[in-house]
Amino acid sequence: MKENSSKKITLVLGGVRSGKSHYAQNLVTNGGRVAFIATAEALDEEMRQRIARHREERPAGWTTLEAPLALEDAILECSGKFDIIVVDCLTLWTSNLMGAEDSQDERIFARADRLCESLRQVTSSVVLVSNEVGCGIVPDNDAARLYRDLLGGVNQRVAAIADKVLLLVAGYPMTVKDVAGATS
Amino acid sequence: MKENSSKKITLVLGGVRSGKSHYAQNLVTNGGRVAFIATAEALDEEMRQRIARHREERPAGWTTLEAPLALEDAILECSGKFDIIVVDCLTLWTSNLMGAEDSQDERIFARADRLCESLRQVTSSVVLVSNEVGCGIVPDNDAARLYRDLLGGVNQRVAAIADKVLLLVAGYPMTVKDVAGATS
Amino acid sequence: MKENSSKKITLVLGGVRSGKSHYAQNLVTNGGRVAFIATAEALDEEMRQRIARHREERPAGWTTLEAPLALEDAILECSGKFDIIVVDCLTLWTSNLMGAEDSQDERIFARADRLCESLRQVTSSVVLVSNEVGCGIVPDNDAARLYRDLLGGVNQRVAAIADKVLLLVAGYPMTVKDVAGATS
Repeated sequence: MKENSSKKITLVLGGVRSGKSHYAQNLVTNGGRVAFIATAEALDEEMRQRIARHREERPAGWTTLEAPLALEDAILECSGKFDIIVVDCLTLWTSNLMGAEDSQDERIFARADRLCESLRQVTSSVVLVSNEVGCGIVPDNDAARLYRDLLGGVNQRVAAIADKVLLLVAGYPMTVKDVAGATS
Repeated sequence: MKENSSKKITLVLGGVRSGKSHYAQNLVTNGGRVAFIATAEALDEEMRQRIARHREERPAGWTTLEAPLALEDAILECSGKFDIIVVDCLTLWTSNLMGAEDSQDERIFARADRLCESLRQVTSSVVLVSNEVGCGIVPDNDAARLYRDLLGGVNQRVAAIADKVLLLVAGYPMTVKDVAGATS
Repeated sequence: MKENSSKKITLVLGGVRSGKSHYAQNLVTNGGRVAFIATAEALDEEMRQRIARHREERPAGWTTLEAPLALEDAILECSGKFDIIVVDCLTLWTSNLMGAEDSQDERIFARADRLCESLRQVTSSVVLVSNEVGCGIVPDNDAARLYRDLLGGVNQRVAAIADKVLLLVAGYPMTVKDVAGATS
């Protein structure tokens, strides 16, 4: 009766250095098989260091997959094989999609809809990390303005199907959405 | 006895693409006469597209007024003639005021005080949309820094007289202020 | 038995012009001896004006100390001599440390750890003000990106030992963390 009812989709939002990744990982504490899907590509030294630092902070025993673009497929591949799937992060995935999908918003939102379809189909629980980037001044350059709009749209789509949405502030979670019956 | 007691002032804050406008419009669901006061001016193609997209998303039957500057008067003109007035948004109004009031903070805050006076006098309920722009890095240029300070001051003034203040995150509202007895 | 149990550490976070300083000062209402530790240095005219405006807004009778760098020591000096210590703000302290500690993150986080040690030792209550700067677009320049990371790390460290963490939005507090039994 409740086969899939224990599956839960959680979206962990927050600013830079708000403790999002750390918090998302701490949600995964009660053992079980964990897949970590990284969307980062180490294109420069700064990213390489950030990726290495995050990797060191993750528990041993987790299976790491890299999916800078094909996140929808990676989630489905992990479905059922892992108890929980951590996706870190939608911020970089959206950034990567801008290159792959030629900055076309319709195409990028279609990818976000496909991601939501994967999240509906997956039988494992999923914790997704993303950034809040829309609370500063309007950026000067067009690409940054477009990126804010795209990531905001991606976050809204994922939040709409998530059971729980949290906003991290200085390492602590504020509840944005919590579907009745969802427990962290 | 309770003639005006059903009137409510609601401030809907949030980052870019946080679902503010959509949420504000969804607050207005139980029929009635609705005025939509737009503060946007279509000065370039990007704004023209944004305005057109927002207009398409609004329900038919709403009366649209444009008040890029004279928002205080527009609200009073609508008073009593509509059950609810949606103001979208204080972000652009403040930006427009910087041009009209020569970027003088005293003059712009005097306008915000006049807006609050209109909100006290109006007999219709009002939902105002505004942006949170102060949570990024200090901008390089003086005008952007001043704008952050001004909009923050405008938001604080309106929040102070609002019955309800919400912060939208990824399409979902977090309650910032809720005067006892206020119901959405 | 409860000698130090009435001591409380409160972190007041928020964006620019969110009412942080004003709110922090209003927390200090029930008389008592108040120390105000300012971390600002008046390096240019804009800062001079901001400092002067803030000083005017503070109650007479408060003792003001300036500690642009040696905040850890200033807190300990005030310990026991004042009922409450207001620190405004960690934002500028972190910025000042970047100069003094040569932008080395390990050294700056070591200073933040020393600050936390002072906050553990102090017998007075402390209210600290800091900014949320990580919710905008990634800044172009390296120093701004580093600063976001550093301030985020400082905020997380102080939040971890605080009894209460608040996020100010348009002048109103949202509770981020509230250790059981803490009362404002």
